[in-house]
Amino acid sequence: DDRKPDTMERLLRRFRIRSQLARECVAEFLGLYIAVVFGSGAAAQVITSEGTHGSYLTIQLGSALGAIFGMLVAQGVSGAHLNPVYSMSLCVLGRHPWTKLPLYSLSQLIGAFLGAGTVYLQYYDAIQAFTGGQLLVAGPNATAGIFSSYPAEHLSFWGGLVDQVRISLFLLCCMALEDKRNGPLPDGLQPIVVGVLILTMGVSMGSNCGFPLNPARDLGPRLFTFIAGWGPEVFKAGGGWWWVPLVAPFVGGLLGTLTYELLIEAHHPNTSNEEQNFQISGNKSAHENGLTHSIFSNLFIVKIRKKSPGGPF
Amino acid sequence: DDRKPDTMERLLRRFRIRSQLARECVAEFLGLYIAVVFGSGAAAQVITSEGTHGSYLTIQLGSALGAIFGMLVAQGVSGAHLNPVYSMSLCVLGRHPWTKLPLYSLSQLIGAFLGAGTVYLQYYDAIQAFTGGQLLVAGPNATAGIFSSYPAEHLSFWGGLVDQVRISLFLLCCMALEDKRNGPLPDGLQPIVVGVLILTMGVSMGSNCGFPLNPARDLGPRLFTFIAGWGPEVFKAGGGWWWVPLVAPFVGGLLGTLTYELLIEAHHPNTSNEEQNFQISGNKSAHENGLTHSIFSNLFIVKIRKKSPGGPF
Amino acid sequence: DDRKPDTMERLLRRFRIRSQLARECVAEFLGLYIAVVFGSGAAAQVITSEGTHGSYLTIQLGSALGAIFGMLVAQGVSGAHLNPVYSMSLCVLGRHPWTKLPLYSLSQLIGAFLGAGTVYLQYYDAIQAFTGGQLLVAGPNATAGIFSSYPAEHLSFWGGLVDQVRISLFLLCCMALEDKRNGPLPDGLQPIVVGVLILTMGVSMGSNCGFPLNPARDLGPRLFTFIAGWGPEVFKAGGGWWWVPLVAPFVGGLLGTLTYELLIEAHHPNTSNEEQNFQISGNKSAHENGLTHSIFSNLFIVKIRKKSPGGPF
Amino acid sequence: DDRKPDTMERLLRRFRIRSQLARECVAEFLGLYIAVVFGSGAAAQVITSEGTHGSYLTIQLGSALGAIFGMLVAQGVSGAHLNPVYSMSLCVLGRHPWTKLPLYSLSQLIGAFLGAGTVYLQYYDAIQAFTGGQLLVAGPNATAGIFSSYPAEHLSFWGGLVDQVRISLFLLCCMALEDKRNGPLPDGLQPIVVGVLILTMGVSMGSNCGFPLNPARDLGPRLFTFIAGWGPEVFKAGGGWWWVPLVAPFVGGLLGTLTYELLIEAHHPNTSNEEQNFQISGNKSAHENGLTHSIFSNLFIVKIRKKSPGGPF
Repeated sequence: DDRKPDTMERLLRRFRIRSQLARECVAEFLGLYIAVVFGSGAAAQVITSEGTHGSYLTIQLGSALGAIFGMLVAQGVSGAHLNPVYSMSLCVLGRHPWTKLPLYSLSQLIGAFLGAGTVYLQYYDAIQAFTGGQLLVAGPNATAGIFSSYPAEHLSFWGGLVDQVRISLFLLCCMALEDKRNGPLPDGLQPIVVGVLILTMGVSMGSNCGFPLNPARDLGPRLFTFIAGWGPEVFKAGGGWWWVPLVAPFVGGLLGTLTYELLIEAHHPNTSNEEQNFQISGNKSAHENGLTHSIFSNLFIVKIRKKSPGGPF
Repeated sequence: DDRKPDTMERLLRRFRIRSQLARECVAEFLGLYIAVVFGSGAAAQVITSEGTHGSYLTIQLGSALGAIFGMLVAQGVSGAHLNPVYSMSLCVLGRHPWTKLPLYSLSQLIGAFLGAGTVYLQYYDAIQAFTGGQLLVAGPNATAGIFSSYPAEHLSFWGGLVDQVRISLFLLCCMALEDKRNGPLPDGLQPIVVGVLILTMGVSMGSNCGFPLNPARDLGPRLFTFIAGWGPEVFKAGGGWWWVPLVAPFVGGLLGTLTYELLIEAHHPNTSNEEQNFQISGNKSAHENGLTHSIFSNLFIVKIRKKSPGGPF
Repeated sequence: DDRKPDTMERLLRRFRIRSQLARECVAEFLGLYIAVVFGSGAAAQVITSEGTHGSYLTIQLGSALGAIFGMLVAQGVSGAHLNPVYSMSLCVLGRHPWTKLPLYSLSQLIGAFLGAGTVYLQYYDAIQAFTGGQLLVAGPNATAGIFSSYPAEHLSFWGGLVDQVRISLFLLCCMALEDKRNGPLPDGLQPIVVGVLILTMGVSMGSNCGFPLNPARDLGPRLFTFIAGWGPEVFKAGGGWWWVPLVAPFVGGLLGTLTYELLIEAHHPNTSNEEQNFQISGNKSAHENGLTHSIFSNLFIVKIRKKSPGGPF
Repeated sequence: DDRKPDTMERLLRRFRIRSQLARECVAEFLGLYIAVVFGSGAAAQVITSEGTHGSYLTIQLGSALGAIFGMLVAQGVSGAHLNPVYSMSLCVLGRHPWTKLPLYSLSQLIGAFLGAGTVYLQYYDAIQAFTGGQLLVAGPNATAGIFSSYPAEHLSFWGGLVDQVRISLFLLCCMALEDKRNGPLPDGLQPIVVGVLILTMGVSMGSNCGFPLNPARDLGPRLFTFIAGWGPEVFKAGGGWWWVPLVAPFVGGLLGTLTYELLIEAHHPNTSNEEQNFQISGNKSAHENGLTHSIFSNLFIVKIRKKSPGGPF
């Protein structure tokens, strides 16, 4: 019995992946997989139970809480982006290498695809019972909305584009949570607060087109439904709506990131050790995610203080 | 790629605002803008979807969570007042300079006005579909309540005034959260607990007239609806009710602040370093918001301990 | 302007109460006042709006969140008991002086009485509109349940007594939260977790008789309704039910406290500095509330470590 | 009065259990007892009140919050497993001795059995009124679902097995929360986040068969209902479904644990003091629960730093 831990730890260490990038991609994959299983699962539960096992609020809770657990699982390895738009925003700000963007996005896409597949398997009987076997994209028995976003009937094309302002607010708030010079949110609570932000968007921006914030989370499940029996209608519905949740979040996300940077972050007062920080941040690993960033700065402050005050800095 | 951060950081630094007051006004503007977009958005979603995409509870959640994110975005710059009543209360207690009050309030007003405009744009199609194009202040298809508060039919004039006792409780609780000598709430959680307080008021004090706590948040969107098509009825409704949510919160807020100060804070036992603190608090910047205040006190305690015990204090 | 803080602080200091016990009673009064205004307010809102402005869940949220803010306001002064049963449990365990119990309880009773009065004033118009002016204790238009607990029709006398087991679980969990040797709940979160506990009881133990946990919170508002127009029926209803929420919580509370002490706390391993702690705890002020208690122990550990290892301890 | 604490503390100390294992079993018993009383209580409240005192969401809240308080009560003594599957997973990973597994599981089973009994007593009148005295397992007046899980009508046998993938996600996320090298969740919040995870599963995986995650929590109450009057039907229902929530969680749990270990934990980079940690972890007490584990590692890091850099490591 006493020898157990060594044996098991050694066994697990055999499977160890030595590439840092591969580890990060696995974490991104697993994180979004979890988020989609919980998020689409909540929608499947409410729709197939015809509201007896939940309500609009529980769908939003499922999305928000699922995202929290996806982030908690991935955060220590990859920083838990779980969203190509967030990865891209960090790249634009120079806090994440552009070279990692395609692999991160692909991992997220695969995670979302398999997450949708898992929900389909789990609710296979319930979907069959609810739809009578007909997998539809529109109408009262539609089930495609479990997996991807479709516009409400009232929504015009221009309305759909304007609605994308939400994604800009989403990324604006995420940037605030990562900005260590703006407010002392206790470390480790970021994933939970980002989840609460998703809930907030769900209760205030969900009725137009289901607030798609995440191209990978929308396209992956859409591809799954295309293959699994809903057919080409998933791309035709809403006047070829499918590309909007793919492209608009990138535009909105960039807008939100720059808004935050220009209205808040650019104006933080310069302190001497902050100046140092900016020079160093050319080093990729330091800024890759906000969590290591904060640890890094603290270490750095200590170093500065130990230096003689007349040094070259 | 490695040179990116420098480039982007330098670019952003070009737009830097050097005036501290201007930065604070931008933060107050952006904070209340976010709070209104989420809060009024939640109401728009529930009303225009006729309850299929939310309920009374999700409207309150939207208001509360929206306020949280508004505060998280603004807190590090301006202390996230987001409410002229709160700013005024701090002024009365000598913890915020009176000279900043008008600019803070104006920034909040503009943020709330533009927030209402954003919600109107975002829900333009949905409002058109729900109302058939008629923007009404009263009746079953009324939509003005998405943006500002109106009294319930049962409410008499005196009842409306008595109802304002709520705002006194609101500010009383806020003062408790900022009072470092009363309870050790972990730093950084204040915005979240204030948001929970707004939810609490929503579930227990919302049915009379929608618990308007914030003159800027009520007047800004009301002005927007006046311009955007609801017309002069937004000022005439409820027997000229519009001025009540403008004036009553100041009265109630002052009442609540003084109640807290007289019943709780005035009686905290004097400690020697606390005495020092009071002398210093004539310095405006130290007391401007509770967050810097607490950091300041801690620094001060360290200083005192380093002094020789027979010093002039 | 710069002289303001001094002026205001000095003004407030004039009203300072020098008696520690009087300060504690004011805090207990204000804390339960706030809890009742929010808690009964939530019930008034749902009942008088006939469910359009909330649901059973929002009533429970109002009670739970109201209690949180009551505790946050009072915790730094009196430890925020807000419940005679909790005060008594601490007395039984020797952690609170018996002499304070009557004054604490009276302050709580007055707070609850005035809280009920405030809710009545605030919802006066709504209650008139809902009841047509008839203040009833039973039937579909009953409003007495806004203020105090009444048994459901299905509940027998013995069922009502058995139902009191809940209060034992309530105090058992509260004792766990205060037990520093059992689990590292971050300091300052106790009020929030106690509020969540009240919500838990609301969703799982509320349908029999509204889970009265607190004799002061039940009797104070009942007395108010007796005076305000509901009349003697508030004492006659449910076969003279009124004394059950007055007496049973004391019995159940004692049961829960002793269960926790006997099943968990009594078995914590003895450490040397813990032994010291027990000797000192005869000193009333150290154990008066869990918050100061924990600070005290930490200080003490430091002292022990500074002592020479061969000392008399 | 001053002598009170000594007296009471001494009295309680007489009942002290000296066996560490016995103390842990008492904590596991009490923890799951509390979780079941709150969880099944919430279901009993909603079902017997026919939805007037809650909804599907409040049942999930009751389960989740009840589990939180069960964990808060037991965590400092036994680490609050409260689930044989979790205990087994720790055994497989060599972090908990296999010899404790049977006694932990038995204590959990007894806690769940008595918890069900308590809910039955508490809701005896309400169940009688709702059922007219007929204790049924299926149909519109069924009440057995208050205590244990039964499959929905739409669920096929294979669907039920696939549905067990959820438990693998549950344990996967729990492992992430305990993994100190993955993310800095503030200490003491684990029980709360695990409770939120249970809520997440309730809103996204509950409609097939009530997401049984815990063999002890399912079998204990099922045995109680067998004895209390529901009879052998509790084992016959759903085509002899009862053994699925008993066996499947072990399979799914193992799957989830290994998935987390292989995809995330095995790949954490080796640091020198981590290596040391693995050697020591043969010592049972160090790894028994994640909370002591983390304290232990911190102490160890300090020790390493004090060593001379040229030592034998």
